[in-house]
Amino acid sequence: MKYFDKTSIQNLNRVYRLNLINSISGYKAANLIGTKGPASENLSIISSVVHLGSNPALLGFIMRPSSVERHTLQNIKSEGIYTINSIHEEFIENAHYTSAKFDKEVSEFDACQLEAEYRDDFTAPFVKNSQLKMGMKLEEIVDIKINGTYMIIGSVEHLLIADKLLLENGRLDLNASQTVCISGLNTYHKVTKIQDFPYARVEELPTFNS
Amino acid sequence: MKYFDKTSIQNLNRVYRLNLINSISGYKAANLIGTKGPASENLSIISSVVHLGSNPALLGFIMRPSSVERHTLQNIKSEGIYTINSIHEEFIENAHYTSAKFDKEVSEFDACQLEAEYRDDFTAPFVKNSQLKMGMKLEEIVDIKINGTYMIIGSVEHLLIADKLLLENGRLDLNASQTVCISGLNTYHKVTKIQDFPYARVEELPTFNS
Repeated sequence: MKYFDKTSIQNLNRVYRLNLINSISGYKAANLIGTKGPASENLSIISSVVHLGSNPALLGFIMRPSSVERHTLQNIKSEGIYTINSIHEEFIENAHYTSAKFDKEVSEFDACQLEAEYRDDFTAPFVKNSQLKMGMKLEEIVDIKINGTYMIIGSVEHLLIADKLLLENGRLDLNASQTVCISGLNTYHKVTKIQDFPYARVEELPTFNS
Repeated sequence: MKYFDKTSIQNLNRVYRLNLINSISGYKAANLIGTKGPASENLSIISSVVHLGSNPALLGFIMRPSSVERHTLQNIKSEGIYTINSIHEEFIENAHYTSAKFDKEVSEFDACQLEAEYRDDFTAPFVKNSQLKMGMKLEEIVDIKINGTYMIIGSVEHLLIADKLLLENGRLDLNASQTVCISGLNTYHKVTKIQDFPYARVEELPTFNS
């Protein structure tokens, strides 16, 4: 095995370290954050959406105050709402390029040819081609002081799911819409189910194969 | 599309809501958290590990103070260190069953037939069969007050990577070790690369296919 200690990680060149450390957490969810501000609509690819709780339904994601994500963060702060939209194989290239540093008045929907849609009186834009999308209400922005990042916490106000994804008992078949995941900074993957396991109980341990 | 608003999500039965809301963030990284406390070693499957930053190298994950995860959380607080270990197709069943509510003195390594290993003087156990593993130092526990969960933030002290995973320039080929991802509460998936894209620059937008 290759081994890196803390000091050798610090001493890596910047691009090597970015590639490496962005890869070590494993596969990451691929989502687009949609917002609307005074200047324009914004759309930003995010690979850090994380489940916080089901009751109430809460999701978080991490942002750094970089030039790319600042417009999205400003819009979330000023409007208090945003959308989270799944990414599917058919539009991974469009989604990836939302990470370019467009000027504030440019909509990444237009620049990356992704269609916005609105629902009723919710004023943040959804991605039309996403098969799983949420209208979120900002609940809290947590300062992560150790490195100046933020966790944006929101509650699910609106949840839209393509019919074919919704299985019995609330489970979702994300494979059915070619939902992708990400590794590192820029590698996109398709995903294929291996197996479901039951809720794990001590008194029902299986005989393990390995 | 199926539509749920905030109220209809609240009114779902508990298991339906758990399945649904645990699925909406997309595919999740599959990792095992290894700790050692006064009573025993502990091992806990976690699907919420998230990248926080590369310099310093920081990862976070979410814990709720449930009976299952409490032993791991206690050990992290008392010892200040833990390990994060990748999960591969060959041992998904073993890894899944670490989520059962074992008594405190039971080691999930033993109960789920996963072998522990130690490195030098780092006293938290690694998972021998993991191809990507980290020895972590606890940096901060962030209270997420809105629902009583915690984000555990740690820095990477030791990083071990199977030779075949490490590509040029720090990128990792997680496919090469059959690293899995998770959806919902209990569905495990294999992952296959579709494509790498270059760093996105405004002046280098492609002609989009879709």
